[in-house]
Amino acid sequence: MEKKAVKPYVVGMDIGGTNTVFGIVDQDGNVVCQDSVKTKAYPIIEDYVNAIGEKLDVLIESVGGKEKINGMGVGAPNGNYYTGNIEFAPNLSWKGIVPLAKLFGERIGVPCKLTNDANAAAIGEMTYGAAKGMKHFIMITLGTGVGSGIVIDGKLVYGHDGFAGELGHVIAVPDGRLCGCGRKGCLETYCSATGIVRTAKEVLTSSYDPSMLRNIPESELTSKDIFDCAMAGDAIAKDIFQKTGELLGKSLANFTAFSSPEAFIIFGGLAKAGDLIFKPVKEAMEENMLAVFKNKVKVLPSQLKDADAAVLGASALGWEF
Amino acid sequence: MEKKAVKPYVVGMDIGGTNTVFGIVDQDGNVVCQDSVKTKAYPIIEDYVNAIGEKLDVLIESVGGKEKINGMGVGAPNGNYYTGNIEFAPNLSWKGIVPLAKLFGERIGVPCKLTNDANAAAIGEMTYGAAKGMKHFIMITLGTGVGSGIVIDGKLVYGHDGFAGELGHVIAVPDGRLCGCGRKGCLETYCSATGIVRTAKEVLTSSYDPSMLRNIPESELTSKDIFDCAMAGDAIAKDIFQKTGELLGKSLANFTAFSSPEAFIIFGGLAKAGDLIFKPVKEAMEENMLAVFKNKVKVLPSQLKDADAAVLGASALGWEF
Repeated sequence: MEKKAVKPYVVGMDIGGTNTVFGIVDQDGNVVCQDSVKTKAYPIIEDYVNAIGEKLDVLIESVGGKEKINGMGVGAPNGNYYTGNIEFAPNLSWKGIVPLAKLFGERIGVPCKLTNDANAAAIGEMTYGAAKGMKHFIMITLGTGVGSGIVIDGKLVYGHDGFAGELGHVIAVPDGRLCGCGRKGCLETYCSATGIVRTAKEVLTSSYDPSMLRNIPESELTSKDIFDCAMAGDAIAKDIFQKTGELLGKSLANFTAFSSPEAFIIFGGLAKAGDLIFKPVKEAMEENMLAVFKNKVKVLPSQLKDADAAVLGASALGWEF
Repeated sequence: MEKKAVKPYVVGMDIGGTNTVFGIVDQDGNVVCQDSVKTKAYPIIEDYVNAIGEKLDVLIESVGGKEKINGMGVGAPNGNYYTGNIEFAPNLSWKGIVPLAKLFGERIGVPCKLTNDANAAAIGEMTYGAAKGMKHFIMITLGTGVGSGIVIDGKLVYGHDGFAGELGHVIAVPDGRLCGCGRKGCLETYCSATGIVRTAKEVLTSSYDPSMLRNIPESELTSKDIFDCAMAGDAIAKDIFQKTGELLGKSLANFTAFSSPEAFIIFGGLAKAGDLIFKPVKEAMEENMLAVFKNKVKVLPSQLKDADAAVLGASALGWEF
């Protein structure tokens, strides 16, 4: 968060189930260089750290060596900020507890911090993006799942154990859709990229109304298809966005009662649908808002460039040293 | 929060719709003296401040005068910590925005801060009660309504506008019971003292099962009656507590996903029902908890003495100066 660091660059790294992307970022939020590896190609953690280490050494050398690097930040599923460990991440090959910040800190020779990807996005947004200058906001990431990062008084909320901010797993529909977490009705079963596809399948099954979506084999249907059809004027596809936005908006009204943020910042695939999603979100949020919070809370799209966002978000942690 | 204040006493005041209670508290959390006025007797705010001022002068004199007073804290409905104002409180006679902290600060001659009653309770619990030493907890007050005070990193969460922590108005049952706030299904329509009475009426109407509760005229039924009948072994009354606890427990599981607290501290009339309410709350919370939070979060009763709690909670704000 501190941009008055002595050293001019930070390293950012985003660990996804498929790809790990890493790069070097300057104080203005420019990704000056980046590279990547396939996460799944390294089932042994030491091999993974070494493979990335070799590539990172080259990048770091290109900006003048590690004495120019203020720190390194990593965004990772189930990343615990307090311990620097990845803990029991279901979608990664490394089982149990992996001391990732320690391993990279030692290998690269710069201090390293870690948090989950949505928290990293929130810090990135606060450091370089739509939340610059905000003290109270909530980042909502709409990807394969729904993630969140909560900022209060200018600080990320990590909670008692380091895992606060799991708003994708707040129950949005009691006894609703089965979630990957084993529970039912989690927000992410409706408002993620996979959730909107589930909604599409439900809607298409429950009526005979014509829709361009019916031309796509059900097993191949993606959230991008629903977006394309909605933009082409397909009524069913537009209705699917409307429903998704309404449920997300209702949830945002509930979240507001918790920390009374200045804004929600929406990031990820679905957020690119613009008014198709933002309009119903805002309307449903205001309609369901407790009076004291009405017309106070903004809903804004992320301002981090897509290609850079993952690395940028994580990199912002590197300024904390 | 700071107990190393130079001066040995603080003034605490709790403004309720019916009574206003105020007193002087020492650094160990003893209420050394207190007094009260009828809130509704003073529809003009200046009269109210003067009436309390005269009584408070006497109390303050009894501990050595105002140079012994570190500060004053007030708990009030719709109290805004940032501004020191009461803003549009529906249950008080004074309309619009009332600069209460300023009025009392000037009248009494000590610095004064204000927040809502549930936030005051949270600060009291952290300063003198069950949350001593905790950095992350959520206070839940079960009274006529349901209030909450959220503590993160040892600090009360006030949010962007000063009104954060309205967990009694998170929707617990979509399209559920009409709430005083105009919305439907708010937690407080089920889990407050009035909520449990509504549940009792529903349960009694929907069956012919025998119950001691049927001996009480419906219009006179109170949460205390339900407690008494449950303690006497009445199956219907016990079931009403079970249902109430289950819904509260589910809500606590959702709240955990937000700030991952070390504990929930439960205060107020219903909390006195002991295991009748705590057992179903804990069971439902764990059953509905996201895996990463299971078996981590305590549910504890308040440790503030009942008669003193309102004054104590508010008084803790007086240590912030």
